[in-house]
Formats: sequence, C-alpha cells, structure tokens
Amino acid sequence: MIFVSRQEHFNAAHKLFNPKWSKEKNEEVFGPCANSNWHGHNFDLIVTVKGEPEPDTGFVVDLKKLSQLIRREITDKVDHKNLNLDVDFMKDKMASTENLAIEFWKILERTLPTVSDTAQLHCIKLYETPRNFVEYYG
Amino acid sequence: MIFVSRQEHFNAAHKLFNPKWSKEKNEEVFGPCANSNWHGHNFDLIVTVKGEPEPDTGFVVDLKKLSQLIRREITDKVDHKNLNLDVDFMKDKMASTENLAIEFWKILERTLPTVSDTAQLHCIKLYETPRNFVEYYG
Amino acid sequence: MIFVSRQEHFNAAHKLFNPKWSKEKNEEVFGPCANSNWHGHNFDLIVTVKGEPEPDTGFVVDLKKLSQLIRREITDKVDHKNLNLDVDFMKDKMASTENLAIEFWKILERTLPTVSDTAQLHCIKLYETPRNFVEYYG
Amino acid sequence: MIFVSRQEHFNAAHKLFNPKWSKEKNEEVFGPCANSNWHGHNFDLIVTVKGEPEPDTGFVVDLKKLSQLIRREITDKVDHKNLNLDVDFMKDKMASTENLAIEFWKILERTLPTVSDTAQLHCIKLYETPRNFVEYYG
Amino acid sequence: MIFVSRQEHFNAAHKLFNPKWSKEKNEEVFGPCANSNWHGHNFDLIVTVKGEPEPDTGFVVDLKKLSQLIRREITDKVDHKNLNLDVDFMKDKMASTENLAIEFWKILERTLPTVSDTAQLHCIKLYETPRNFVEYYG
Amino acid sequence: MIFVSRQEHFNAAHKLFNPKWSKEKNEEVFGPCANSNWHGHNFDLIVTVKGEPEPDTGFVVDLKKLSQLIRREITDKVDHKNLNLDVDFMKDKMASTENLAIEFWKILERTLPTVSDTAQLHCIKLYETPRNFVEYYG
Repeated sequence: MIFVSRQEHFNAAHKLFNPKWSKEKNEEVFGPCANSNWHGHNFDLIVTVKGEPEPDTGFVVDLKKLSQLIRREITDKVDHKNLNLDVDFMKDKMASTENLAIEFWKILERTLPTVSDTAQLHCIKLYETPRNFVEYYG
Repeated sequence: MIFVSRQEHFNAAHKLFNPKWSKEKNEEVFGPCANSNWHGHNFDLIVTVKGEPEPDTGFVVDLKKLSQLIRREITDKVDHKNLNLDVDFMKDKMASTENLAIEFWKILERTLPTVSDTAQLHCIKLYETPRNFVEYYG
Repeated sequence: MIFVSRQEHFNAAHKLFNPKWSKEKNEEVFGPCANSNWHGHNFDLIVTVKGEPEPDTGFVVDLKKLSQLIRREITDKVDHKNLNLDVDFMKDKMASTENLAIEFWKILERTLPTVSDTAQLHCIKLYETPRNFVEYYG
Repeated sequence: MIFVSRQEHFNAAHKLFNPKWSKEKNEEVFGPCANSNWHGHNFDLIVTVKGEPEPDTGFVVDLKKLSQLIRREITDKVDHKNLNLDVDFMKDKMASTENLAIEFWKILERTLPTVSDTAQLHCIKLYETPRNFVEYYG
Repeated sequence: MIFVSRQEHFNAAHKLFNPKWSKEKNEEVFGPCANSNWHGHNFDLIVTVKGEPEPDTGFVVDLKKLSQLIRREITDKVDHKNLNLDVDFMKDKMASTENLAIEFWKILERTLPTVSDTAQLHCIKLYETPRNFVEYYG
Repeated sequence: MIFVSRQEHFNAAHKLFNPKWSKEKNEEVFGPCANSNWHGHNFDLIVTVKGEPEPDTGFVVDLKKLSQLIRREITDKVDHKNLNLDVDFMKDKMASTENLAIEFWKILERTLPTVSDTAQLHCIKLYETPRNFVEYYG
C-alpha cells in the first residue's frame, strides 16, 4: 500500500456566523472572523489516496486525472467564491475549515472511482492559513 | 546604507469591480475576481526600510517597533476586513494589490518617523497569493 | 473525528552535552552541537488536536484559544531562552528535540482541557531546522 | 515511541515509458512525462525512523549519521543521474515516484541497522514536485 | 511606477556540456552536471513587469494575461522537455540557468506588448533549485 | 550583466548586549534579545554576484565554487557557534543581523577573486528569521 498526494489551491471569502445567535454572541465567539462584510483566505488543499502501484504504469493513480477531478469537483466550485453564499454543499453549514474538509471528503469519496478503479481516498488536508490546518480521514 | 525588512500578514476579502462599468463589462475584464459575493486572500506584506546601523544598537531600526507600527497602522485596519467596504483609505479606489501597496506606502512614509529618526522607507512588497505580488518604491 | 493543527515558533539557544561524560566524549558524540558556548535555532512547533466539530461553531477547538494556550504554556517559556539553563521543565534533561517534544506533550495534555472539553491532544511536531524534525503522539 | 525525520534532496532526469507498449500508447497514458528526450525534477526525500530516545544522548538516532546514510546509500546514487538509465535498483522498473519510494525503503530498511541498533524505519516521503508526493510505510 | 510579478514553473532535463571540449574536460569543469544521460530540475520562473496602474482597473498588467503569455511563449516550450535537445531557442547554447534567463527575456520583451500597451519588462528571475537562482534585467 | 545567487544556512547563538550600558538599559532596549543566557537562530544567507556569462560555460560563476567559498570563509566560522564569543570578525561589535551582513560582505569582497576573475559581489541577504532579514550592497 502506498499513499499518493496532490496539492491544489483556491481563494475564497467566508465568515463564521451562527444565525441562531445574536450579532454580539457571534462576535464574542468568533471575534474578527464574524465580520459581517466577510474576510478571505488562500486555501491549500492536499488530497491523499492509497493503493497498490499498477504494474503497467507504476502509478497508484494518474495524478493528472486526480488533479482534474479535484479541480472539476471542488476548486472550480469554491475558487473566487463566497463559501457561505455561493457554494451549494456548504448551505446551512458553518463555513469552518473542519466542515469544508468533511464536505470535500464526501465529494471525492463519491467521485474518485471515475478516475481510478482501485485507489481509495485516505485524507483531506486543508490549510486555511500556513499556520492553521485540518486533516480528515473519513 | 543597509536595507532591513519585516514581514507581516493579514487575511481579507475583496472584489475587483469598477462602478462606472456594467456587470457584464466587469466580468469580462476581471473574470472571477469580479464575483459580486467577494472572494479573499492571505496577504503577506514585507516592509523594507534603509539607513545606517546605529553604533549603540547595531540596528537600522528596532524591528519590534517596526512590526508594531505595521500592525497598528496597517494590518489592524485590513485584517479580517473587506478591503472594498471596511477600509477608509481604500474608499473609491479599485481594491487591486497595486493600489493597496501604494496606500500602505503613504501611511508608512508618514508614520515611520515615529519609530526611527533616521531610517527611510524603501519598499512595500505585497503578496496577494504566493505567485502574484507587487513592489512599490514610492 | 477530525484533526486540527496550529503552528507556533520560538528562537532558543541550547547545546547537547552529557555531564556524565568528558568534554572529549561529548565532542565525539555530539560534534559541533556540543559547542560549550552554545548555538541556537528557530524552532517551529505544530500542535495537533482531534475531536468532533461542535455543531454550533463548526470547530473542534477554537484555534485562537489553542494558540494562546501554546504561547502561555510553552513558547513564552522557551522563546529567546537558553533551553539548558533557563527552562524549568528541561532541567537535568538532554536538550534534544526529542526530549523537548515529550515535555511539550506533557504540558499540553495537562492544560488542553482549559480551552476545550472535548478535544484530545494528538501530536507534537517540532522542527529544529527545516530539515530535522520530530513527532510525538504520547 | 517518537518519530524523527531528516530531509535530503536530489536532482534527476527520468521518463515514464512502458517498453511493452507502442510510442503512441505511452504518449496517450503518460502524456508529456513520456517525452523520449527525458525531463527532470528536484526531488525532496524525507526519511522517518521511530524508537525511544536513548537516555545518554536524548536521540532516537543521530541525525548526522542518518543523513550520511541517506546520502551514501541513496542520494549519491540518484543525484544528477538518469533514473531509467543510470540507477541499478531501478533497472526494469517504471521510474514512477511510487516505485522510487519503495526501492528507497528496501535499501534503508537493510542499512539502517548500521547507524542505529534500536531505531526502526517508519516512512519514506518523496516529493517529485512541491505539489505531487508519495508516502510509503513498508 | 509599480512592479508586478507572476511566478510560473516547469520541469525539464538538461546537461552542461561544451561540444568543443573532451568528455574529461567537461567532467572536470561541470562535474555531475555533465552526466551524459542528463539530469533535471523543477524550475521556478518569476517575471516582473513595471508601469503605472491603469485608473480603470487598478492594474499595471492583467496577471491572468501575463500568466497566459508566459505559459504560451515559454513554459509550454520547456516543460517536460530536454533543454539541450527539444528547445529551439536554446540550440547551440550552453543550457545554463543564466542563458535560459537571457533567452526568456528576449522572448517576453518581444511579446509583452501583446498583453499590455504600457507595461515594460523589468526582470526575469529563474530558480534552478531553491538554493541556486539568477536574475536578468536586460 | 546577470545576477547569480547561492543560498547557504547556519545555526548560531547570540545576544544583543551593549557593554557600555547597564543590564536594565540593555533589557529596555533589546528586550528578550538581551537574555544573558543567549538565544539563537537558523540563519539563511543568500550571496549574489554579478557579471557576464562566460561563453565556454554559460556561467557567471561556478556555483559549486561559490558555495565552497561561502562555506569555507563564512558558514564554517559561524555555524554552531556563539556569534558574540566564538567569531573573530564579530569581536567588539554588536551581534546584530546588520553587522553580520556587513562583515560577511567584507570577507566575500576580499575572497571572491579566488573563485572568479570577473564576477563582482552584489548583495548579502541575511535572514535571522523567516520574517526578519537584511540586505547589504556594499
């Protein structure tokens, strides 16, 4: 078993705001992340899949196809977007890095078979900033 | 003469949108950067000053004081903010990286004397993404 | 279960020196790291915790609080310090990166409950240089 | 148990080409990676070993010795080389990053005891580019 | 006047070999860089242009267009190629980083007017490795 | 004219302390950098030289020779050392990054002719931390 990773990136706006709470409670809990006029980040996304290298290619997965899959299914839908307003799969969810990673997992677990019969999704690693990041293993 | 630099960072939302143009013209010129719901970035800001090292300290400028100046005058005003809506000195200006760098220069040229009698502002370098950046020398 | 990480940094002096050994033996084993006049590093510290995102916030842990905890309990005690002479929890221990990581784990395992009821400490990753680093999982 | 890592690097040429297939089939599967005149990369290699810190040194392994081992056994054999033509242990294998990592594992698992009685090999992480990398745990 | 930069990358094979010299002389001068079976690198290319921001856009140059120009005129011609054998503009030249940067300058100086009436080429910065790089200002 | 750069690194201890001042004055001016038990850094040093590429090699300077020169004349003398106590050329000088860069310039300006007849020293760039750095052009 070998683990293969591809890094992609996207730039998006978001805010952290719980609609069940008052403006004051949101500001108390989320601080400047609750700014009503939004803020944003350059996100870095690392997708890791695992499997055996195919003897004919030496590949666990064709990284060009994995890159195209991530772009088509994820970064095209979030890049230069507002994660709270523009992204179907984040509707009615807190736009936290944790929740983004979980939704990215669901999408790629469903669509990875279109680019590989044998590779399995292993990890979604998502950097919100170079110093803050999350990892999700399903 | 020696050049001394300090890097700071901030996260902000913006869009590129010229109010004199139609929505269509804006989208044609700015592409996804014109997204009406905003997008955002992790900006990295490098401020360079120049001067002679003071004999008593070996410093051109006290970098802790330069860092505090940049935070107080710039990053506190743009971090977790919307550059088009929340930032006084960007009112009625296109929120391009170029224009941000020019405004940062004006602010720091005016306020640098509060932390050093002798150092002069030399360059504002601003990364919008790790691959796109501008430099301004006044 | 999702894993959330925060990176902090500190600059410190140390040397590798076993008081049970002669100067010659120390120099033979530790090479230039045994230099009696010390040397130092910019350390990067990545703390990873794990848990379920809280529904109200989307957070496993509030990263601002985790950052404050790491600063208060660790980096304030080691930054701009001598790891052999100035740091209580390294007394009578070899100032190796391995031992530092183990001590950081003990401190954060004890104090993490002050910032989160549910998150558990998962990993301490400590870079001594960009090319040399250790990971400790308890 | 603690995990200790050392990063080394090398620059090499390779191509992806399956001799059982036609030139056309190779180009269809491998795209520009099949270019008959070769292309190349700056590879970054991170070797992780695990064990208990020795009480006398605080070390799981002497990183200088681990670095020398990696250089002698691996990077001296692949740096400024053609991975398909010049490297014994890649003969008759696809020169994929996956296969390189597996061969590096075999070499280091066999030779690690020459620098440590107690440390065990844990992971080979190999970056072909900053955005494409593999991990192998044996 | 403001300076705007865009970073692109490419992976290529090359060798340093002067056909006027013997194999021995080449190996003496160029060391492992003369390896007859080639070696290769991940090159990072930073192109800097200068000009005044246009009032309507706030841009010195549209970075998307500059990126497309660099890809079309340069990286499409060198990525996954052999710099000595496959690249027209390097024919009969030593494939050094210096000479590559000079040829890239000539190409972009000629073609930059297709994406901007006013911006001028300022610098070609080319990293052969993260530790070796050249800059050319025309 | 083309500019060629080589990056090297070293790890060292230092403190900022002016012997003409009281302990209190030193602490007031230099803060934690005055810690009497020292602190330290991983320094990154970038040396830039300029010249015309030699027709026979395509090189402004042989970077392997430049690297060996920097190691022999500088990093061997400061790596794993105490900059205040162990380094001849820093005797009786404040161990600031500015002063280090100026001393490195003097050494390399004098010794560069031993590795190149034609290249001229252009810049010493010295990172004390990833966020604090100086540049000196003679």
